[in-house]
Amino acid sequence: MRIVVLAGGIGGARFLRGLKRAVPDADITVIGNTGDDIHLFGLKVCPDLDTVMYTLGDGIDEERGWGRTDESFRLKEELAAYGVGPGWFGLGDRDFATHIVRTQMLAAGYPLSAVTEALCDRWQPGVRLIPMTDDRVETHVAVTLPDDDPAAGPSAGSGTGRTPPDSGTRKVIHFQEYWVRLRASVPAEAVVPVGAEQAKPAPGVLEAIAAADVILFPPSNPVVSIGTILAVPGIREAIAEAGVPVVGLSPIVGNAPVRGMADKVLAAVGVESTAWAVAEHYGSGLLDGWLVDTVDAAGVERIEEAGIRCRAVPLMMTDVDATARMARQALALAEEVRAV
Amino acid sequence: MRIVVLAGGIGGARFLRGLKRAVPDADITVIGNTGDDIHLFGLKVCPDLDTVMYTLGDGIDEERGWGRTDESFRLKEELAAYGVGPGWFGLGDRDFATHIVRTQMLAAGYPLSAVTEALCDRWQPGVRLIPMTDDRVETHVAVTLPDDDPAAGPSAGSGTGRTPPDSGTRKVIHFQEYWVRLRASVPAEAVVPVGAEQAKPAPGVLEAIAAADVILFPPSNPVVSIGTILAVPGIREAIAEAGVPVVGLSPIVGNAPVRGMADKVLAAVGVESTAWAVAEHYGSGLLDGWLVDTVDAAGVERIEEAGIRCRAVPLMMTDVDATARMARQALALAEEVRAV
Repeated sequence: MRIVVLAGGIGGARFLRGLKRAVPDADITVIGNTGDDIHLFGLKVCPDLDTVMYTLGDGIDEERGWGRTDESFRLKEELAAYGVGPGWFGLGDRDFATHIVRTQMLAAGYPLSAVTEALCDRWQPGVRLIPMTDDRVETHVAVTLPDDDPAAGPSAGSGTGRTPPDSGTRKVIHFQEYWVRLRASVPAEAVVPVGAEQAKPAPGVLEAIAAADVILFPPSNPVVSIGTILAVPGIREAIAEAGVPVVGLSPIVGNAPVRGMADKVLAAVGVESTAWAVAEHYGSGLLDGWLVDTVDAAGVERIEEAGIRCRAVPLMMTDVDATARMARQALALAEEVRAV
Repeated sequence: MRIVVLAGGIGGARFLRGLKRAVPDADITVIGNTGDDIHLFGLKVCPDLDTVMYTLGDGIDEERGWGRTDESFRLKEELAAYGVGPGWFGLGDRDFATHIVRTQMLAAGYPLSAVTEALCDRWQPGVRLIPMTDDRVETHVAVTLPDDDPAAGPSAGSGTGRTPPDSGTRKVIHFQEYWVRLRASVPAEAVVPVGAEQAKPAPGVLEAIAAADVILFPPSNPVVSIGTILAVPGIREAIAEAGVPVVGLSPIVGNAPVRGMADKVLAAVGVESTAWAVAEHYGSGLLDGWLVDTVDAAGVERIEEAGIRCRAVPLMMTDVDATARMARQALALAEEVRAV
């Protein structure tokens, strides 16, 4: 069975671990989000690709969900001692090696897809991991920073001792700054995958989709993870036209994200944080099946009315076995769809 | 008192620590060797500048003499796990930060001299540290590698089971590869500061020499440290024409280098490893005074006959106080020269 999975970071990576357990012999291709890639200290950092690679290659810090196990942060402390930031992005001493190797290979002219393949030679994730594109796409977020934010400029209100009602500084910031530095503490007014319109799918992406038996959307962020992958021209169309079941798992359980802050970026695209609203956001033109958690069983009917086959099952990835059960449910739903 | 010191790595750095102790109020400008700079992992590494900076800024690993105190090497181990080398060059986790900051500033367009000044803002070495040049100079060494050296190519003799008398692979390698990987275990057939002829002294170098009251050559390597600095057009001439005492300290004690493997590269330039041969190598056109160790007192007369004022004093930098005494002796000899 050939399975294509669109994956963001932690949610996608953990789902993939369950999927591998559920169908060890499946041929799995992962199309990874690169919209949250960032250049730091002259290095190209691909957080989502690395999270998938480290998680499936048994190199992940399980507790944090990102970065390397048994990690230290001495290099970063030294950079801070030089006054070089940003300090808010966690790059560990061991993790740095991945970014150094990647940056050197990119500088030597290899495309990101080839670099990712080379890095996976070490990690042996047991899936084929392809970045959504070899082109540069960076998700930016429009926000209004409070006047006391260090990144906010001087505002009309500063110095008067009174904060005007329309205070704050409007700014477009990198997704990582929004997500990691600000912890999504201010509303995302817009989310823009800069460069996506000009990007081409990386070699192998469209081929994998065309050859897939099943396409899965893990419980990843529907806006900044899966949404960014779908924003690369050709990918959404290829999935819609693949003629195979496309099944997703809701990242929203009981009107809140299972983890992360998906609600913050869903609001930016006018989607409420419910399992059914996310399904409708993908739409029946793309999605054939949708798993919601048992606590959201009341929404099943509404989703099915929207033309998307839906089942309510436990969706908490508490451990690999529970996640494997979710993966089996998703594949079972795909077979139901196929049988129609 | 304005003192200019030409410095290589460990020997120069340790001498400078003694000099600062000897004359705490002196205005010291250090012209640092950059011929052993190397690009590793996409980063610009300046071993001699860093050794001076870390030593005078109390950040050095005292035992090794290079790199940071309380250092770890986890990043490097990870690079090795990716199969990325060279493994023979020691770059610690904390040390990496210096190279990252330097490389980023160079990429932003700052010349090495400005970058060095910025790095010294943190380390406060108590001297003005200027690289000899902002241009790229790299010392290369011509060697004949034994056939079993991993860097040696296939030779005519391999596979025959018999090593021909003229076996080995002639190769030109980076100084660091010669010094660190090979530990100078094969003769240096030639030492070439590649790029030196086209290099210009960094801003401030010639000005510092012209304004100096005394110019000192610490017991640094006369070929690959001080020799490389002197190979930058204009520097040797400026020193010779400064009209102030130029005094050096012999790095050779009892016909052997005090530390390091200076004898290996002295042979390449046809200079024997004796305190007087090194003095004659610099020559009376450049050098006014020369300190040799007491064990080399027999050579004093010969050096003075060559037109270089010479004294025999203890030259072992066993601790900072002993080194400070050496520095005072050098300054005393400079005053003798000046009084003539």
